[in-house]
Amino acid sequence: MRICPEGKQRYKLLISYDGTDTVGWQRQGHDRTAIQETLEELLGRLYATKITLVGSSRTDAGVHADGQVAHFDAIPDPARTARLFKALNRLCPRHIAVKAIWEVPPEFHAIHSTLKKTYKYRVFNAPYRSSMFGRYTEWVHRPLDIEYLNECCQYILGEHDFISFQTGPNERKTSIRRILSAHWERRTPHLVEFTITGSGFLKQMVRNLVGTMLDLHKYGKPPSDLQKVVEARDRRVAGATAAARGLTLYRIYYPQHLDFKSHKI
Amino acid sequence: MRICPEGKQRYKLLISYDGTDTVGWQRQGHDRTAIQETLEELLGRLYATKITLVGSSRTDAGVHADGQVAHFDAIPDPARTARLFKALNRLCPRHIAVKAIWEVPPEFHAIHSTLKKTYKYRVFNAPYRSSMFGRYTEWVHRPLDIEYLNECCQYILGEHDFISFQTGPNERKTSIRRILSAHWERRTPHLVEFTITGSGFLKQMVRNLVGTMLDLHKYGKPPSDLQKVVEARDRRVAGATAAARGLTLYRIYYPQHLDFKSHKI
Repeated sequence: MRICPEGKQRYKLLISYDGTDTVGWQRQGHDRTAIQETLEELLGRLYATKITLVGSSRTDAGVHADGQVAHFDAIPDPARTARLFKALNRLCPRHIAVKAIWEVPPEFHAIHSTLKKTYKYRVFNAPYRSSMFGRYTEWVHRPLDIEYLNECCQYILGEHDFISFQTGPNERKTSIRRILSAHWERRTPHLVEFTITGSGFLKQMVRNLVGTMLDLHKYGKPPSDLQKVVEARDRRVAGATAAARGLTLYRIYYPQHLDFKSHKI
Repeated sequence: MRICPEGKQRYKLLISYDGTDTVGWQRQGHDRTAIQETLEELLGRLYATKITLVGSSRTDAGVHADGQVAHFDAIPDPARTARLFKALNRLCPRHIAVKAIWEVPPEFHAIHSTLKKTYKYRVFNAPYRSSMFGRYTEWVHRPLDIEYLNECCQYILGEHDFISFQTGPNERKTSIRRILSAHWERRTPHLVEFTITGSGFLKQMVRNLVGTMLDLHKYGKPPSDLQKVVEARDRRVAGATAAARGLTLYRIYYPQHLDFKSHKI
């Protein structure tokens, strides 16, 4: 529901999960490992009624989140609210954590109120595979040239039709998106991190952008070739889709006036 | 063997592993998940003969390593040596990686040449459990006072009898060890890291030190109580043993003259 119905309170959840062994955020038929379904079931138990959770991003199977946002509506009950955070986290399986819960104004909507989103893509860049972070990183054994990758990024900044980087058919009216920032950084000698913030993203757009940049790098192409891929508006011109395991939904931004009207419980 | 026998070459391995689903470094009877046994079997396949691996630290079940060191002796064979790094890593299960291999002088010994060792103990310090780093961190939901914990550290610096922090009977002649540095740091808002370097460590000494400091913190005791625990020379006076999952063997230091005489392959 776009606006919280009368007599109910809208709640906002900030959620973190390890997507490795899940089908992603959204339920797929009767598969029970979707994050959304797991949380809906736990909330349903706590509220003793069916709860529908609206998630901001439908992360794919294997993709992680440290800042997924979702909302649900429930009849307010101070006693239940007071113990909601602890009770929900106590029930959560090990791969899911609820980082915070807010009471939000009725017009807050996890999807429609979104201003921008930040994703991180992590690469383990060493001659050997990571023994500890294989679940959260893609392995690239060739030494990555961060300067090269950052030169590529300039061609995706701003507003572009990103249809070349979309997997599957276009579900929305337009494939034009605005990229506000995109950069690569070597965080530790072996950990390389790509951070991208945009108004929104097409299906698998971040993984397709990363895969294309890594392919251009691998084959020694000039960074400006990324502009050609954007302009081609053809998925077949772009590179491979980078593995899901490297991707983390990092943060979702909402208008300040909604934050000001929210109350952390 | 203390010194590499004539006609053989001694090799030094730098090893990283996720200890979560293992019994630790050393084999326990017929259990096949010991890191040492896994690597000996792989080396045995590559050299087509039985290889014995001498590891510097017998890390416990569940403890991780990013800088374990081990050595083995083998009849030198340039063709085999050239492909050893890649071949060994290709065979390694996902939780083990060989970070580097050196040809070392015959007097190098993974245990006896050790000068000092560094361990890290990681704590996830948030009101909710970590969804992604639960394998590598212990969860403490109360906010930790880093200044307090660092005050505790001053009482373990230098040479002390650490028998209060040893699990099980004393296997060596003395329980006196020298701590060269020990400090706590908040690396990110929710990640707290304890780094300790010493001449050597008793069985579970780092986990017992961490558990004791966290217990003193929890019960609001003055930091100087740690000195009393040291002086008591009694395991029953110290706190709980911190969980294995938080501990990582981080680095082992060897004399420079041995490093200079080593050759990375």
